[in-house]
Amino acid sequence: MQRRRYTVAVLGATGAVGREMLKVLDERRFPVEKLVLLASARSVGEKVTFGKREVVVQLAEPDAFEGVDIVLASAGSGVSKQLLPEAVKRGAVCIDNSSAYRMDDNVPLVVPEVNPEAALGHKGIIANPNCSTIQMVVALKPLHDEAKIRRVVVTTYQSVSGAGQKGIEELAEQTVSLLNQKPFDVKVHAARIAFNVVPQIGTFGDNGYTDEEMKLVNETRKILGDPSIAVCPTAVRVPVFAGHSESVVIETERPLSPERARELLAAVPGMVVVDDPHAKKYPMPIDCAEQDEVLVGRVRRDFSVENGLAFWVVADNLRKGAATNAVQIAQVLDAHWNAAQA
Amino acid sequence: MQRRRYTVAVLGATGAVGREMLKVLDERRFPVEKLVLLASARSVGEKVTFGKREVVVQLAEPDAFEGVDIVLASAGSGVSKQLLPEAVKRGAVCIDNSSAYRMDDNVPLVVPEVNPEAALGHKGIIANPNCSTIQMVVALKPLHDEAKIRRVVVTTYQSVSGAGQKGIEELAEQTVSLLNQKPFDVKVHAARIAFNVVPQIGTFGDNGYTDEEMKLVNETRKILGDPSIAVCPTAVRVPVFAGHSESVVIETERPLSPERARELLAAVPGMVVVDDPHAKKYPMPIDCAEQDEVLVGRVRRDFSVENGLAFWVVADNLRKGAATNAVQIAQVLDAHWNAAQA
Repeated sequence: MQRRRYTVAVLGATGAVGREMLKVLDERRFPVEKLVLLASARSVGEKVTFGKREVVVQLAEPDAFEGVDIVLASAGSGVSKQLLPEAVKRGAVCIDNSSAYRMDDNVPLVVPEVNPEAALGHKGIIANPNCSTIQMVVALKPLHDEAKIRRVVVTTYQSVSGAGQKGIEELAEQTVSLLNQKPFDVKVHAARIAFNVVPQIGTFGDNGYTDEEMKLVNETRKILGDPSIAVCPTAVRVPVFAGHSESVVIETERPLSPERARELLAAVPGMVVVDDPHAKKYPMPIDCAEQDEVLVGRVRRDFSVENGLAFWVVADNLRKGAATNAVQIAQVLDAHWNAAQA
Repeated sequence: MQRRRYTVAVLGATGAVGREMLKVLDERRFPVEKLVLLASARSVGEKVTFGKREVVVQLAEPDAFEGVDIVLASAGSGVSKQLLPEAVKRGAVCIDNSSAYRMDDNVPLVVPEVNPEAALGHKGIIANPNCSTIQMVVALKPLHDEAKIRRVVVTTYQSVSGAGQKGIEELAEQTVSLLNQKPFDVKVHAARIAFNVVPQIGTFGDNGYTDEEMKLVNETRKILGDPSIAVCPTAVRVPVFAGHSESVVIETERPLSPERARELLAAVPGMVVVDDPHAKKYPMPIDCAEQDEVLVGRVRRDFSVENGLAFWVVADNLRKGAATNAVQIAQVLDAHWNAAQA
């Protein structure tokens, strides 16, 4: 039986995540029969290379989804809310990287290493979690299954690529300006990011937490399917171009040794244990760029509490934190459709 | 009665902290009758400006402490262990910024906002705590007095100036090299620090924590005089020139609202509450450089536990984290001596 091939649309094709989605589709040889690249009016007509093909960017509008099987969307919440229902109406399944549908009870929120089965229950839209949640839950899942996580204290070191291409450019421009003692602009990040750290990503709610931080609370519970998990988040932007780092401290119901935790983490597909601190081996952002794997290290007992464990987790936020995870969800759908066909 | 004036020696006078000590002595108009600048052979003969005086750096050797009243030392543990007993023998009181004597039961470990009275019990040496501990305990003290802290989870964002002048230069050189796509050296920090974060400061012990991290555990208990306080530390170097930031999450025995915590923190001398996140007001390293104050903000309830509170604390590690705290200890001694004389 012939393997199914798809018409795939990438919405937000010229953004930082959109470009990465194209790379990952190509690298993973996703069976793309036809590629439709969609963006706002500003980018229409741009030519984008995909493998050996050259594809012209079209306007993102409802009729552009005619005949599309799978939409990979990364164009912001507003665009997703406006256009994805139109795509679904035309028969497409949408994998959305925005926050628009993540907490919608009718939309599965999927990390393929954690809850792939949830993807199959979709009603047209599947949500891709936030970057900082994805890399954390890949590590939490096996530990939760083994010892039941009660509480998580997570503190992030998030790279500027999380704010897209403009976020990357702002760090580069500010760095060069500062080294040359010239003035610079602050537009994308909440404050100057060059040689600084900024304890604000997103906007603050009335409870003192940003929306970025609340994603770590709510998305973690939804993906792990356990609303009892308590999460204390602090999200911070750091002057790193690519790759988010997270310090994660957990408390579990049952004891869990660092040795056992390392075993469990090493067994997760897509996760690599980098944990020999005496030899200066631990995950760092410079080691994860352009990689699909989630790196985990510095796994150690937290002596400040009974059944405490601390670790450090790093991933390329544009890859596993966004593009790779979305393409992996498409691969889950593809495997399911092929199996159903067989 | 005439105010007493002192012969003050600065040991490690040409280092990053030593230079800052001179600035702070001058700014605070500490009653310096005579200034003795001591360093290793490499720096002997250098001329250093102090207020309107020009002072020549001398060799750090036992006899150099003859006639010295107060030694401010910042020359590393080895030098302190070798020379400070010689200074004490000659009648000086030493305020040591190295880790050599911090956990010695016979040596008080002092943060003047927290335990100034401990300084008066010295036997010749008073230890200045580690930078990351100082800024944290200034914030913890009033909260502990009010609600009794049981546990602290602290995650740091430490600037390169914590590794001295060479640490600063390495970030600058690596940044310029990377922007020009040229090769660079990694000598001072455990790994490349430019556009990266490094989860290692100091050296690892067998328990999975670095000595830098264990300082946050042990020094906090000693300064607050409460060995029951549990601390889970993660110390991380970030590409920031000056100013350490810390995400601190505490659990208290009694309830403590963010409003009450802010009141208590605002009442601490030397601490400034910068906490209006909706107006983008929170502490950042770029706001603390060359300042003596500890900045605290993002004070909020930690909803993941009963009696939980989270906050964010920033200070210039060369100032309050080192030089300022040492000079403040000298001021405590001066006030005591003047009071005793009166």
